[in-house]
Amino acid sequence: MRIVALAGGIGGARFLRGLLHTAPEADITVVGNTGDDISLFGLRICPDLDTVMYTLGGGINEEQGWGRADETFTLREELAAYEVGPSWFTLGDRDFATHIVRTQMLDAGYPLSAVTEALCDRWRPGVRLLPMTDDRVETHVVIEDDAGKRAVHFQEWWVRLHAGTPAQSIAAVGAEDAKPAPGVLEAIEAADLVVLPPSNPVVSIGTILAVPGIRAAVAAKTVVGVSPIIGGAPVRGMADACLTAIGVETSARAVAAHYGPDLLDGWLVDTADGATAGDLDGIAVRARPLLMTDLEATADIARAALDLAGELRP
Amino acid sequence: MRIVALAGGIGGARFLRGLLHTAPEADITVVGNTGDDISLFGLRICPDLDTVMYTLGGGINEEQGWGRADETFTLREELAAYEVGPSWFTLGDRDFATHIVRTQMLDAGYPLSAVTEALCDRWRPGVRLLPMTDDRVETHVVIEDDAGKRAVHFQEWWVRLHAGTPAQSIAAVGAEDAKPAPGVLEAIEAADLVVLPPSNPVVSIGTILAVPGIRAAVAAKTVVGVSPIIGGAPVRGMADACLTAIGVETSARAVAAHYGPDLLDGWLVDTADGATAGDLDGIAVRARPLLMTDLEATADIARAALDLAGELRP
Repeated sequence: MRIVALAGGIGGARFLRGLLHTAPEADITVVGNTGDDISLFGLRICPDLDTVMYTLGGGINEEQGWGRADETFTLREELAAYEVGPSWFTLGDRDFATHIVRTQMLDAGYPLSAVTEALCDRWRPGVRLLPMTDDRVETHVVIEDDAGKRAVHFQEWWVRLHAGTPAQSIAAVGAEDAKPAPGVLEAIEAADLVVLPPSNPVVSIGTILAVPGIRAAVAAKTVVGVSPIIGGAPVRGMADACLTAIGVETSARAVAAHYGPDLLDGWLVDTADGATAGDLDGIAVRARPLLMTDLEATADIARAALDLAGELRP
Repeated sequence: MRIVALAGGIGGARFLRGLLHTAPEADITVVGNTGDDISLFGLRICPDLDTVMYTLGGGINEEQGWGRADETFTLREELAAYEVGPSWFTLGDRDFATHIVRTQMLDAGYPLSAVTEALCDRWRPGVRLLPMTDDRVETHVVIEDDAGKRAVHFQEWWVRLHAGTPAQSIAAVGAEDAKPAPGVLEAIEAADLVVLPPSNPVVSIGTILAVPGIRAAVAAKTVVGVSPIIGGAPVRGMADACLTAIGVETSARAVAAHYGPDLLDGWLVDTADGATAGDLDGIAVRARPLLMTDLEATADIARAALDLAGELRP
């Protein structure tokens, strides 16, 4: 079975681990969000791709969900001693090495997709990991506070401001001129199934779908999504702040409606939301326990998504 | 008193510590060699400038003479896990931070002299540290071995091959088109004295003097040098391999003659070489214990250089 998953960071990566566990023989291509990417200290950082790579490759900090296990922070300390910032984006020594290797390859002219493949030669995540695009797409958030109204990089809003200042709008700058990375459309076209893990519907999956060609290719497939909203709140992260910015209610049902029946065929909601979920026009809804408390529970969710796809596939 | 010192790495840095100790009120400008600089992992590394900066700023690994104290090697381990080399040039985590800051500033368009000044804001070395030039000068060494005759970067010959393959020639590529960094000629012209510490006469001091304008400016001053050769051998490092490459005998006397009386006014040799040294045509020679065994011994050597300069100054 050929599966394509569109993934953001922590939620997507954890779901993928369950998917690999329940479908070890599947041929899985992950299309990763790169709208969160940022250049800091002259280095190119791809938080979502790295979270998927580290999680599936066994290098993730399990408690935290991002960054490396057994991490140290000597460089961070030294950069602070040089008074070189920003200090609000935490980078560990092991993580720095990834960004150094990536930046060196990008500077040498390799596209991000080739760089990601090279990094995965080490991590062997068990999936084919592709960035959504090799072009520069950057998620910007318009906020207004004492410093006035301005657009900031997504990471500044998310990590530095903890999404505490309401987003007036969110834009994937550069997306409209971006091309899907080599292999992305081909993988979607060849897929038996496209899965939308419980990633952020706005700044993760929404950004991937904003790259011209991807949404249409996905919509032509059997698509099953897993709600990132349980009981009216994101399980982790601040997806509610993103949904509010684009005028979507923070509920499992509203997220499905936002994706729309042209895109989505099946939708898994948590049992807590089962009563109010019901089928949506053109979207089959099933209620299952969606908390990814451990690998078994996560594999069960992935299995439920595959089962629902099995029902729906033409 | 205004003093200019031309310095390479370890020998120069240690001598400078003695000079600062014996002449704490002196206004000292250090012109550092940048011919050893190398780009690795996409980062710009200036070994000699850093050795001076770390040594005088209290951050040096004392036993080793280069690199940072309390160093860790997590990045090195990670880069090896990515199979990204070279592995023969040892960079510690703390040291990496310096190169990251430097590279980011260079990429932003700052000249190396401005970057060095910014790094010294942290280290406060007690001297004004200037690179010999802001232009790219790279010391290359022509060698011949099983892989054929070829020019390699100085660091590859020195660090990777331990200067074990004889150098057929040594060239400071780019030197003839380089301009002294801002402040270098001005500092030399304003100096009461120019000191040549016991640095490598070929690839450290020789390279600095190869930047057009520097040698003539230095020659116009009272110049006292300290022999890096004691008893016919370099105290540390492999200066003999460099001297042989340019056809100069490895002796205190031959090095002085190589600098020449047009450049050098006074020359300190070790007491071990006192008997054979004598005055050279136009160069006053004094024999003193030259082993920099500790700070006191080093300060005595620096004091002897200042005393000799006092005798010679017009």
